[in-house]
Amino acid sequence: MIRFNNDYNQGVHPEILDAFVKTNTESYGGYGLDEWCEKGAAAIKQYLGGKNADIHFLIGGTQVNYTVITAALRSFQGVISADTGHINNHETGAVENTGHKIHARKGVDGKLTASEIREEAEIYRTSGAKEHITQPKMVFLSFPSEYGTIYSKAELIEIHNVCKEYGLYLFIDGARMGYGLGSSVNDVTLADLAELSDVFYIGGTKCGAMFGEAVVIINDDLKDNFRSYMKQNGAMLAKGWLLGLQFYTLFKDGLYFEITKYADELAMKLKTAFEEKQIPFYIESFTNQQFVILTDNQMNKLSEKYAFEYQGKIDENHHMVRFCTSWSTRKEDVEALVKDISIL
Amino acid sequence: MIRFNNDYNQGVHPEILDAFVKTNTESYGGYGLDEWCEKGAAAIKQYLGGKNADIHFLIGGTQVNYTVITAALRSFQGVISADTGHINNHETGAVENTGHKIHARKGVDGKLTASEIREEAEIYRTSGAKEHITQPKMVFLSFPSEYGTIYSKAELIEIHNVCKEYGLYLFIDGARMGYGLGSSVNDVTLADLAELSDVFYIGGTKCGAMFGEAVVIINDDLKDNFRSYMKQNGAMLAKGWLLGLQFYTLFKDGLYFEITKYADELAMKLKTAFEEKQIPFYIESFTNQQFVILTDNQMNKLSEKYAFEYQGKIDENHHMVRFCTSWSTRKEDVEALVKDISIL
Amino acid sequence: MIRFNNDYNQGVHPEILDAFVKTNTESYGGYGLDEWCEKGAAAIKQYLGGKNADIHFLIGGTQVNYTVITAALRSFQGVISADTGHINNHETGAVENTGHKIHARKGVDGKLTASEIREEAEIYRTSGAKEHITQPKMVFLSFPSEYGTIYSKAELIEIHNVCKEYGLYLFIDGARMGYGLGSSVNDVTLADLAELSDVFYIGGTKCGAMFGEAVVIINDDLKDNFRSYMKQNGAMLAKGWLLGLQFYTLFKDGLYFEITKYADELAMKLKTAFEEKQIPFYIESFTNQQFVILTDNQMNKLSEKYAFEYQGKIDENHHMVRFCTSWSTRKEDVEALVKDISIL
Amino acid sequence: MIRFNNDYNQGVHPEILDAFVKTNTESYGGYGLDEWCEKGAAAIKQYLGGKNADIHFLIGGTQVNYTVITAALRSFQGVISADTGHINNHETGAVENTGHKIHARKGVDGKLTASEIREEAEIYRTSGAKEHITQPKMVFLSFPSEYGTIYSKAELIEIHNVCKEYGLYLFIDGARMGYGLGSSVNDVTLADLAELSDVFYIGGTKCGAMFGEAVVIINDDLKDNFRSYMKQNGAMLAKGWLLGLQFYTLFKDGLYFEITKYADELAMKLKTAFEEKQIPFYIESFTNQQFVILTDNQMNKLSEKYAFEYQGKIDENHHMVRFCTSWSTRKEDVEALVKDISIL
Repeated sequence: MIRFNNDYNQGVHPEILDAFVKTNTESYGGYGLDEWCEKGAAAIKQYLGGKNADIHFLIGGTQVNYTVITAALRSFQGVISADTGHINNHETGAVENTGHKIHARKGVDGKLTASEIREEAEIYRTSGAKEHITQPKMVFLSFPSEYGTIYSKAELIEIHNVCKEYGLYLFIDGARMGYGLGSSVNDVTLADLAELSDVFYIGGTKCGAMFGEAVVIINDDLKDNFRSYMKQNGAMLAKGWLLGLQFYTLFKDGLYFEITKYADELAMKLKTAFEEKQIPFYIESFTNQQFVILTDNQMNKLSEKYAFEYQGKIDENHHMVRFCTSWSTRKEDVEALVKDISIL
Repeated sequence: MIRFNNDYNQGVHPEILDAFVKTNTESYGGYGLDEWCEKGAAAIKQYLGGKNADIHFLIGGTQVNYTVITAALRSFQGVISADTGHINNHETGAVENTGHKIHARKGVDGKLTASEIREEAEIYRTSGAKEHITQPKMVFLSFPSEYGTIYSKAELIEIHNVCKEYGLYLFIDGARMGYGLGSSVNDVTLADLAELSDVFYIGGTKCGAMFGEAVVIINDDLKDNFRSYMKQNGAMLAKGWLLGLQFYTLFKDGLYFEITKYADELAMKLKTAFEEKQIPFYIESFTNQQFVILTDNQMNKLSEKYAFEYQGKIDENHHMVRFCTSWSTRKEDVEALVKDISIL
Repeated sequence: MIRFNNDYNQGVHPEILDAFVKTNTESYGGYGLDEWCEKGAAAIKQYLGGKNADIHFLIGGTQVNYTVITAALRSFQGVISADTGHINNHETGAVENTGHKIHARKGVDGKLTASEIREEAEIYRTSGAKEHITQPKMVFLSFPSEYGTIYSKAELIEIHNVCKEYGLYLFIDGARMGYGLGSSVNDVTLADLAELSDVFYIGGTKCGAMFGEAVVIINDDLKDNFRSYMKQNGAMLAKGWLLGLQFYTLFKDGLYFEITKYADELAMKLKTAFEEKQIPFYIESFTNQQFVILTDNQMNKLSEKYAFEYQGKIDENHHMVRFCTSWSTRKEDVEALVKDISIL
Repeated sequence: MIRFNNDYNQGVHPEILDAFVKTNTESYGGYGLDEWCEKGAAAIKQYLGGKNADIHFLIGGTQVNYTVITAALRSFQGVISADTGHINNHETGAVENTGHKIHARKGVDGKLTASEIREEAEIYRTSGAKEHITQPKMVFLSFPSEYGTIYSKAELIEIHNVCKEYGLYLFIDGARMGYGLGSSVNDVTLADLAELSDVFYIGGTKCGAMFGEAVVIINDDLKDNFRSYMKQNGAMLAKGWLLGLQFYTLFKDGLYFEITKYADELAMKLKTAFEEKQIPFYIESFTNQQFVILTDNQMNKLSEKYAFEYQGKIDENHHMVRFCTSWSTRKEDVEALVKDISIL
């Protein structure tokens, strides 16, 4: 079975594995206070356009999302998200479990729009009884979105401006950041994100690391005591240097960008194959996730050799499924799949 | 200024005030363990068709809602509500503050439908990754709804059946229960609610009491330790007998039903007046709240003599407003308003 | 049965009852935005030495405690309290339920000491791993304490100074404030409390009101959005003017001070009676609560005519019990009890 | 600098590193639903005396502690712990952050006693006002304790019996489980823990794994929906097989027991060295942590070559410090330290 089901089905990029092997008998300080975390942070900072950021290494995405949100908000404040957002659908109510309402909006192609944010903020601003409603205080979006779509720089600037206007924090979930940055249609850089958001994270788990996410805090108001929130929320790894070492390896020479771009290119081969076969997309994506609508027959045929993720029934005879490439996808596996698509 | 702005703008029904005066120099046990709470509960039980209910007296509606919900649910479980539901819009995220997600659905005329409940329950039932999503475990609805509409007995039976099918608790918010029961189009009784729901509450604050809500727990699974949840959530009044005494006065001879029916009848006079003037309703209601769409002119004219509640702009020249009657509304004030509507 | 079991066993002071009767057919704005709340706040402010305070009226003590604490603290911060403190023992973990640790200290005679506060603050200050421990950020004390003892002005100044030194908020629970202020040995005024604390509350429920507590916020950092916290925590009464009216009645001409002083004087008669009989005190109190150690015989005898509160077994043959006077205690009942003590 | 400062300062046991290398290009299902997690669980079950356990792999100890506790308890319930317990002092209030009170007791030598548990349970059992206090419902203890001491089988049976008598869950934190089991004075087995507790965990992070803790749930009441609690609390690793693989490696042939016993033996050499030099122990420990009281001079001398953990000042001239051995400690380093102790 060849796996295109997700982008976290293999261990770790060989260079990181190598780094683990080489450092395995060294001793380090605990809880992220070590030289590799410093080096990892410095390596990332190269790309932040000189912004004065605090960088923390956490273990997984759900953990990052609720820890950042609960650290930023007071109990009467909520977070605006696309209703397809990860925090709204795939994290078992983790954000609500920390006490915060998610103001979910429809979005367009999996992306929250500036006008939706404005509408939500206006409800609060114009309310004559603010103490009876939650205050939207943070905007959550994913780059790329759950459907692989990405925000253009112009869109992010527009969102940034609305956030400034209404005093909202902008938090960008980058679980698949690399695949967004590496997309052929992308015009956004990490420096842009550092300029336009208050806090974002760079996903490792899905982008070459064994595990780990790098949280980049730009807004000074969100920096204090973040390590206390991490510890309280089970997000501080005892052997923290393992995280720093991974991000150092990924960012010291741009490996992160290279391997995710590679995955995007493979995804584009799949995209072309589906297009040529006139298999419709659920949403058009230029990143490593491809959402297509297959007939029963097509689905059954492909599932003989390939693992992909079932997303839901479209109608009696059609289904939405996801094919994912990743840093670990092999070219020959993509070629095989492209061929099998062509003969569906 | 004559107030039609809400149904909680006057003190307390004279019979209750009288009861306060008469018992004021008596001494009672604290925290709801007293003879009046027993009598109040017994008076209510007369109407429950013999159901074995636990009855607790709490202070206000928001408090009841989050206390009942948090007592019933585990942290990964959520509550299904119409998106216009009070818990979703008017309680400052109190339910999320206790850690629970609200699964909000569009509803019809402010009412949640059985098919929406089924859809939401099916998402969970058919999910292949239940641990990644919240489990809808409770249905929240208001009788009457936020827009004054009421569920028919047939609708409640249908909802009850879906709840049973999926193992969902049915919780009915009755902040304005009396005005629902007293409606000319209502076919539901308290005994029906006791038969069809797991827990509901009978509103006092808006229906003749000075303050207080009577929580009626039918489902045995929800009965244990409810007083612990009350105390922990600031919902246990030190001088609890004041609550029991009020509900005893309201229910011993049916005063509750009488005074709310009276308010509904007055509301129907307003409804007729608006209809005769061809002033459109936002939603048609047969209870004490009337939601109408006024022009700027109409609104300005009426606001010279009457207080009513602004609900929102419909278009450049139209506004949605609410007129409320209550147990304390005077006939002559309604007659004056009817006349002023007729000459708009 | 004559009740000395607690100070909340009777309805309400006659002057307040009278005010309820007189205003009962008036209409008011909801949720504490009304003229009585304004007047009540103004009446209290007379006694605050000109401090610029925000005053809010809540319903009960547990509710006040957890609402103030959760509004003031972030999730990694805790509150220092005597281990006998109400929040630590009698509120069903309400503070922990909002997510905050209580740093409990032994105290002396039910009172937290400045040196205990310093010790607790020093643990954090000197910790080399602050992110692994909770930060004590607030000091909670009761005036009078759970055992009826009161802090002298000198003690409060010392505590205030420690709080300032370590950046701790000082929060004073005044559920029985009146009985502390009225004590023959008291040298503290409300103006002193306004000077020395960041936030405190003036208890109504136990001091003449039907229900209600007045929260006085002095520190500007704690003022913002307090009404949002109130609403979210079920602490905002729909008919809020009932609270304002009560505090206006109690404070406009000093009635509050008068009726609690009266109760203290009656308590002193009991104290003398116990002393003359050489019945030992558990802790010596000069306020309305008297904690004495009775033999089985003494306890049985007195319990034939009087209700008092059992607090715990001291040894095989001795028990600690509490006798409470209040604003509603009758002189003749005290005289009867004094006589019965004398013939034990 | 030779590190004796803690037991988590090196990467991972070579056999696990080898397993990572060998499986790195294999693909697996996500979130702990894979063959390695099954094998890891099976390998552990060999040692559980046939008990029907659910085994879950989480990432770190704090995470395990609050996830298990919040999954087991309702909001009015609390957990009894020694006041030196990890949850009470070193986890930034994580348990309170989930809403639960810790009933902290003095303990003896870092260990909670059966009689303390009984006392705490009796407070609740005999309370006449249970709804005003938290219900202790779980007992938390660590094996070994924070001070390296271990419970004898007789002590655990006694604690087990008290827990059964009062309906308390027994939860055993085994962050250093291996070092307890491997101690020369230990008479407890994993099968005993499975017999005597409701849930416990086997620490990996400090005992040879790169990271990871294996939660063993024995009591059926605690099994349902545990994966939902894991996900909600950020404790479900995307590449879960990495955890299963580690525990499989550690438990398939008893490696776990071997490497922790080795560390204990090295610790005993240190213990003997301190004894021979008549350097006093803070608490006598027969596991891998040794707590000794050094003079200024001794501390300064040893700190030239060795890293050890400062724990606190004893008096003007004495300090309590911890020396830790681990699976990764080298014999020659211990020998060097032994020699340097002898010439202090």
